[in-house]
Amino acid sequence: MFQTAELGQRVSREDFDQISNDLRSELLSAQQDLRQADFPVVLVFAGVDGAGKGESVNLINEWMDPRWIVTRAYDEPSDEERERPEFWRFWRDLPPKGQVGLFLSCWYSRPILDQVHGRSSRGEFERQLDRIAAFETMLAADGALILKFWMHLGKDAQKRRLKSLEKDPLQSWRVSKRDWRNWKLYDSFIATAERTIRHTDGGQTRWVIVEGEDPRYRSLSVLTTLRDAIRQQMIERQARIKIITEAQAEAAAQRSAELAQVHESRPAIEKAAEQEARAGRKAKPSTVALTAEGRMKGLTVLDSLDMAATLPKEEYGQALRQARAELAALSRKARDRGVSTLLVFEGWDAAGKGGAIRRLTAGLDARNYRVVPFAAPTDEERAQHYLWRFWRHLPRAGRLMVFDRSWYGRVLVERVEGFALTDEWMRAYAEINDFEEQLIHHGMVLAKFWIHITKDEQYRRFRERERIAYKQWKLTDEDWRNRAKWEFYESAVNEMVERTSTAEAPWTLVEGNDKNFARIKVIRTICEQIRRRLG
Amino acid sequence: MFQTAELGQRVSREDFDQISNDLRSELLSAQQDLRQADFPVVLVFAGVDGAGKGESVNLINEWMDPRWIVTRAYDEPSDEERERPEFWRFWRDLPPKGQVGLFLSCWYSRPILDQVHGRSSRGEFERQLDRIAAFETMLAADGALILKFWMHLGKDAQKRRLKSLEKDPLQSWRVSKRDWRNWKLYDSFIATAERTIRHTDGGQTRWVIVEGEDPRYRSLSVLTTLRDAIRQQMIERQARIKIITEAQAEAAAQRSAELAQVHESRPAIEKAAEQEARAGRKAKPSTVALTAEGRMKGLTVLDSLDMAATLPKEEYGQALRQARAELAALSRKARDRGVSTLLVFEGWDAAGKGGAIRRLTAGLDARNYRVVPFAAPTDEERAQHYLWRFWRHLPRAGRLMVFDRSWYGRVLVERVEGFALTDEWMRAYAEINDFEEQLIHHGMVLAKFWIHITKDEQYRRFRERERIAYKQWKLTDEDWRNRAKWEFYESAVNEMVERTSTAEAPWTLVEGNDKNFARIKVIRTICEQIRRRLG
Repeated sequence: MFQTAELGQRVSREDFDQISNDLRSELLSAQQDLRQADFPVVLVFAGVDGAGKGESVNLINEWMDPRWIVTRAYDEPSDEERERPEFWRFWRDLPPKGQVGLFLSCWYSRPILDQVHGRSSRGEFERQLDRIAAFETMLAADGALILKFWMHLGKDAQKRRLKSLEKDPLQSWRVSKRDWRNWKLYDSFIATAERTIRHTDGGQTRWVIVEGEDPRYRSLSVLTTLRDAIRQQMIERQARIKIITEAQAEAAAQRSAELAQVHESRPAIEKAAEQEARAGRKAKPSTVALTAEGRMKGLTVLDSLDMAATLPKEEYGQALRQARAELAALSRKARDRGVSTLLVFEGWDAAGKGGAIRRLTAGLDARNYRVVPFAAPTDEERAQHYLWRFWRHLPRAGRLMVFDRSWYGRVLVERVEGFALTDEWMRAYAEINDFEEQLIHHGMVLAKFWIHITKDEQYRRFRERERIAYKQWKLTDEDWRNRAKWEFYESAVNEMVERTSTAEAPWTLVEGNDKNFARIKVIRTICEQIRRRLG
Repeated sequence: MFQTAELGQRVSREDFDQISNDLRSELLSAQQDLRQADFPVVLVFAGVDGAGKGESVNLINEWMDPRWIVTRAYDEPSDEERERPEFWRFWRDLPPKGQVGLFLSCWYSRPILDQVHGRSSRGEFERQLDRIAAFETMLAADGALILKFWMHLGKDAQKRRLKSLEKDPLQSWRVSKRDWRNWKLYDSFIATAERTIRHTDGGQTRWVIVEGEDPRYRSLSVLTTLRDAIRQQMIERQARIKIITEAQAEAAAQRSAELAQVHESRPAIEKAAEQEARAGRKAKPSTVALTAEGRMKGLTVLDSLDMAATLPKEEYGQALRQARAELAALSRKARDRGVSTLLVFEGWDAAGKGGAIRRLTAGLDARNYRVVPFAAPTDEERAQHYLWRFWRHLPRAGRLMVFDRSWYGRVLVERVEGFALTDEWMRAYAEINDFEEQLIHHGMVLAKFWIHITKDEQYRRFRERERIAYKQWKLTDEDWRNRAKWEFYESAVNEMVERTSTAEAPWTLVEGNDKNFARIKVIRTICEQIRRRLG
């Protein structure tokens, strides 16, 4: 794999000067175009020590405008980083759209070094590479230009390089005993590198192997590759925007048509539902599936819920006190043990998410929890991958964090409203499962709630909100508009549960027509999950 | 001071229910109005343990919408926090405009506890209180509603409270041995509290003392105070916006008039300057001061610079290599010692800030530095105090951070362009000095550079940028517009240096007509400051 990078490629000073003059101006102009573009550039530098990783990064900073470049290198994680999943530190440093991120000794470092030094099994190593591949592929699918440079030196060339650095009084600090120890592991290092590159080299996440011996040659290699890749990506993204615009228009038209169909068939359905409600019976799924909208709606997991479930008022007070006390005790224990908890709340408008959240937090120590609402993203968030804003709010060790709405917006509102394209929300299921797996493997408690109410119950609550003064602000036109798309949301919820209710991170569907019942079920479920995690 | 909070105030359940019904809806509606407002609410809860600090915070979260509330409590700082000045952790948690921040055991905790336990001298304690007062006054001056609740219990009442908590199986965890030890220090605690409150009670940063024995009474006290304060602040801010709009219009008119005057007098001045330039002489300040624009311009510190200073080209290469090598060595040493460095660059457009920055970073290890440009703030930054965006980028221990433009924008561009009101930029000098003092006392190296060029030199460089392809993007209409206000900027720079060049954080004025001279001077100055700090 590395033979082509041991050919002794050189560039003369004259050629270098001639080429570099144009190249500098082309790079700057590419960077200027990039600043208006809707994608970030992620450059990874890895390879043999002494092959010019740091020098390349410095050169990019010198030739391009360093103000729109983020350079990051990683050593030991801080305690705030250690308290989150491993990739948190990389997520927090990702460049926003229009900017360039240079990453040194980043997500490849630990897996490669652990493998070379025999600290990880082959299986672990492969799993780490899978994680990396998933991470990069996800960013690339979102539009990021990902380019990974493997800076290479042959074994003898590395030895020469280390020796010459040692001789230079201004550079000798760069060489430590560790470097010589590593040099002795050269062959194992290269074998590991080859496996790494093969495993993580994708169409949109490609490795570029650069011969590192001649500084002029390697500089031109890196920088012309960078220039061409930015230009290419600009063209592809622009073409894509055209396609997207057309696709969105088409999807919008289709949605309107479907919506009209639903409205037409509504009277009959609503009537049936009303009759069922009057009869005090649970809606029979079979009846619903036979209606005109069966194609879209079908049977959903929500139909399996016993929406008549209630908790008698006289039991509620006592149950709430008990559940809260248990939650308070468990959350103190979790705090002491450094186990963090993330609670995700999704549900229909007016389903009672806010009330459930307040009931569960009311018994907790304010020092220990936080509620974060997710509505429209800020401009800093919009300039990043959609998962970025959730990564940034992950709780520290021992804390409890409540997300009022979450990353599931991608496959709910963004899907239904057409804010995300079909391929975007379709690949989101895998991205989400992967994200949640990282949370769980880090040792976090993750509980996900869908608070469900029937359509009739929602109607009743909307009307009530209109009546009661201090609830009026809660009801917006948006809510009525969302309600009109009830069936679309229903099938989106169904698919969400189907695809993301995993053994490790199951969904809890909460029968929410009776608020008291729902609140107690939520708190008890949280207790159960924390208790299980604490063992 | 606390007698009024030991009266045994009580509220009956009936009264409470009756009042709380309206109060809840009023609080929610105040919070809804607040969300559109241009100020944040900062609530501090301090006081006697057991007097209901945590309960009040929970109640606010329960009665109001917790999604727009940030609750924060502080224990041991994380290592990322320890690596920054003490107040960094509070700055990072400040609520944005339109939201409410609840702060428990926050900036008052350590000073009070250190004082009570005899770990700080009276002098230190007072300095800590001064720091707090300056912090809060600054936020309040920026519009923040600051309200500090001292939750009080008499000595006997506290004892009763601790005992009753101990008896309740659901609450007993709240009481530890430490609480009883603290109770023995009650008198000293109260004396310290009194000094704290007296020292930090301002018109816009007021303390509210609340009797904490009866939960219903204290809840209503806290919540009605909060409701009234939000309402009052809404009215005051609205009135202020009117005044501001008028003041800004007037200031804009005045600036235009002054600008016109400058333009009128320009031909003569430019001609004189041109003659001087031709004669190859340095412009004599005395000549300039006698012109029509003398009123605004006068003599500035910039006139004292020897703008003919040059570094012969043949010396530059060697000097650059030496200075860089020294900087590289010093920055490694600083890294090892955990000493962080913050470099601030200000200067005229085209003065060569970017070039100077790239020359100094080129010799550094990419793992160790970062360049952060400050242009227009993001919406998250706009929702905060103007210093917030600089606090958030303070370097970790051992790192070197370069700020391309900085908080001095407040007294330069924001002043000259009228983005900040007169009282805003005038109080900024003190705020900035206070901010920098915190950096220095934390042990950071802070070097501030004003890169100066003459007006003629700027003209030459603008023209050059127009000619050279890869420099074109650097020149915008904005640059020409700024140039037209040269004299305004000059006097703003003069006042900035006058007021913020302190013994601990002096400005370095750099003669920038000769880029080589400037670059070497910058690097050498940084070396000197790091060397002095490392001792």
